[in-house]
Amino acid sequence: MAFSVSALCLRALRISLILGLLVHSDDAKSLCGAFSPGDIIIGILGSVHSKVKDLQTRILIFFNHQCLLHFDLIPFVHSLAAIHTIETINDSGFLPGVRLGYQMCDPCAYGTKALHCVEHMLSINDSLAIFSDYSEFLAPMKAFVGERYSELSIPVAKLLSLYMIPQISSTSSSPALSDKLRYASFFRVIPSDVHQTKALAKFMKYFKWDWVGVVNLDDDYGKPALEKFLNDSKEENICIAFQEELPNYLGYTNMEQRIKEVADKIQTFENATVVLLIVRPEHVKMIFQEIIKRNITRIWISSDAWSTTRYLMKMKDINRVGEIFGLTFLTGNVPGFKDYLQNLTIPPGVKNDYIREYKQIRLNCSSGQQSEHTSPSACNVTDPQEQNDDHLLQAVDLTEAYGQSVAVYALAHAIKKLLKCNDTACSGETDFLPWKVKFIPSEKLPV
Amino acid sequence: MAFSVSALCLRALRISLILGLLVHSDDAKSLCGAFSPGDIIIGILGSVHSKVKDLQTRILIFFNHQCLLHFDLIPFVHSLAAIHTIETINDSGFLPGVRLGYQMCDPCAYGTKALHCVEHMLSINDSLAIFSDYSEFLAPMKAFVGERYSELSIPVAKLLSLYMIPQISSTSSSPALSDKLRYASFFRVIPSDVHQTKALAKFMKYFKWDWVGVVNLDDDYGKPALEKFLNDSKEENICIAFQEELPNYLGYTNMEQRIKEVADKIQTFENATVVLLIVRPEHVKMIFQEIIKRNITRIWISSDAWSTTRYLMKMKDINRVGEIFGLTFLTGNVPGFKDYLQNLTIPPGVKNDYIREYKQIRLNCSSGQQSEHTSPSACNVTDPQEQNDDHLLQAVDLTEAYGQSVAVYALAHAIKKLLKCNDTACSGETDFLPWKVKFIPSEKLPV
Repeated sequence: MAFSVSALCLRALRISLILGLLVHSDDAKSLCGAFSPGDIIIGILGSVHSKVKDLQTRILIFFNHQCLLHFDLIPFVHSLAAIHTIETINDSGFLPGVRLGYQMCDPCAYGTKALHCVEHMLSINDSLAIFSDYSEFLAPMKAFVGERYSELSIPVAKLLSLYMIPQISSTSSSPALSDKLRYASFFRVIPSDVHQTKALAKFMKYFKWDWVGVVNLDDDYGKPALEKFLNDSKEENICIAFQEELPNYLGYTNMEQRIKEVADKIQTFENATVVLLIVRPEHVKMIFQEIIKRNITRIWISSDAWSTTRYLMKMKDINRVGEIFGLTFLTGNVPGFKDYLQNLTIPPGVKNDYIREYKQIRLNCSSGQQSEHTSPSACNVTDPQEQNDDHLLQAVDLTEAYGQSVAVYALAHAIKKLLKCNDTACSGETDFLPWKVKFIPSEKLPV
Repeated sequence: MAFSVSALCLRALRISLILGLLVHSDDAKSLCGAFSPGDIIIGILGSVHSKVKDLQTRILIFFNHQCLLHFDLIPFVHSLAAIHTIETINDSGFLPGVRLGYQMCDPCAYGTKALHCVEHMLSINDSLAIFSDYSEFLAPMKAFVGERYSELSIPVAKLLSLYMIPQISSTSSSPALSDKLRYASFFRVIPSDVHQTKALAKFMKYFKWDWVGVVNLDDDYGKPALEKFLNDSKEENICIAFQEELPNYLGYTNMEQRIKEVADKIQTFENATVVLLIVRPEHVKMIFQEIIKRNITRIWISSDAWSTTRYLMKMKDINRVGEIFGLTFLTGNVPGFKDYLQNLTIPPGVKNDYIREYKQIRLNCSSGQQSEHTSPSACNVTDPQEQNDDHLLQAVDLTEAYGQSVAVYALAHAIKKLLKCNDTACSGETDFLPWKVKFIPSEKLPV
């Protein structure tokens, strides 16, 4: 009798647990569009959509941060580079007997949404465990790759430092992120902007460009980079003709007006023939469109955020804006990545709504739903999901994705060490405490 | 039979729930030291302890952010002002039939710990619910008062904007916090630093002080204030003789060395007779100690962070540093607050470990445990918890606490409107959705 009661109870408990899962399973679904199972799950943050819905209205009427349908190929390809590297590591037996999985979420280039993503990724059944002591916290994500933008990496790093879960970015270059006291578990595979702005100032000096204009973003990338550049340019006796700030938020209501004002400034200061743009590619595009319209010619200096952005180089009449110079980080090829992109498929057992969405956008035949990414042969395709072409190779500079691969390999090496892997097996526990992952020998840490 | 099985199951479930509570109940206890029950709970963030344990070592060996025993009377009195105002509102029948309660947590002046506090305060039974849609999220805290420092208010505001839970600060003056697109649910009862730095530059201009030194913190308060001041001083033709940055983190290993370097700079630039200090009172104290030792005299300009800090004005030999000028915000008296502080007691049913700790520090007779706050008559006291004196009135400028009272009243007014209270009753639901609290008529919001 006792047995049957217990069995019934257990069944009731199990049913309620399953019901609980069912009730919540859809809840934070929209945040995270990709998942692959594995023994160790890596979190990927990638702003595949470049803006959230109308932040101005949200102050008045509450709604959740929804992403708008602005599909950004660069972060998309970056995320694919991370995924491809994870798959390569799994196929190569680099971690013998251990499979890396991933979950990818899209913060849509917005800091608060990035915090939301992280809270969701660290939760189990839509519940995030809160402790005073996290030293025994077996987080479901063992590390994070991303975010792209410093504006997002900074709040994420502040939160992850609580748990000491490693986060590696291949693009966030804000000097603030070098501060180990504030961002203890943040790492990156590129240098801080302190070096970039110094190099840019020296570059200008070399060409005797000593009267320059600067346009920067109003965010955690643009503001500190401007500050550093102002100091460095002073050292090189370069004078600042004007300085303008643009909103990071692409959905900003008066963006068009602000772009015109920036163009006015550039036009007015005709002796300032050199203009440094510390902004996102989307902003550069808008500025260049206005500049081309006004028939202005300048020498443009690019920050790392857009120095390899191919769609800017392919803009109509781009040769009329003048010369463009820029620095980029050390890059390389990711072996097999070209093939991967040309044969983009979602393996069985893997979820990837971003690939699905991309293919739908690329090969959408419906009139009225076509975009700049739509293939000219879209209407000849029967099933977009089964189709592939080389558009991503044409549209995105793949060397940009190299850093993502380096970041994932850095992580895999650290995990290999932690799990005490040899050529045939890994003896360590795969459900490890994330703070045990170490990238840098202790003696080399900046204390 | 069916009934008895269900009853057994229910009992089993209840026991497991209670066990769950017991297992976790102690967990995040150390974060939050004060609680008073009520129909509506307000979260209070107050850095009563001014630093967390050794952040340098934490990079090497994981441990939780523990607060060090540096009891800071100013945030303590600020928190008491919020608590006193809540009690006054309850006693006055301002919200008829509705009792305001509070929970207070101490982030110890550290951003990541502030996020930890907020996650804890929004959790129920140590579990934070994660949804994609927070429009129906009945958060246990209906609003937050605090934090003091912009460095902490900024990450907190970024997180709270997800839920649109109102946060009001009476001291965080960083210009960034005016940005409603990033910090949609943040409010403050003081102006942004853009006005302060402008006023300081005009003040300097008036006295023809056109060659000044600046020392600022390396944080979200000091950096933007410096940036604004540099622009404003340029407008007024004031030149910057030198600029030095100090770490916000009081536990910084080389702080003593950095203070000496700053003093060296001040000493070297003897023609820069005016020095602006955009730092916390603790930093000013260290700088002044060094300045007094070196027998240097300057004109000191204070930022809002220390312009009314009484312990600085009472420092030994303070008259030897030179003249000190500073601006402060509009202040006033909080009715009954003096009496409250002179008769500091913890009401029945209320928890306040901070008051307990203060009394223990103030009236600690044990040798070796005495501090600057210890009363000379400590050893005549039998039970420190039953004793009171007027030390807080002497040590802290109470007008500083005025803003806290204004913040709580602003909140109470907004709640009164939401709950449709008249003179005798409130008809609205006390377990409301926090985003429904509105401070500003929609048409006045900066969009």
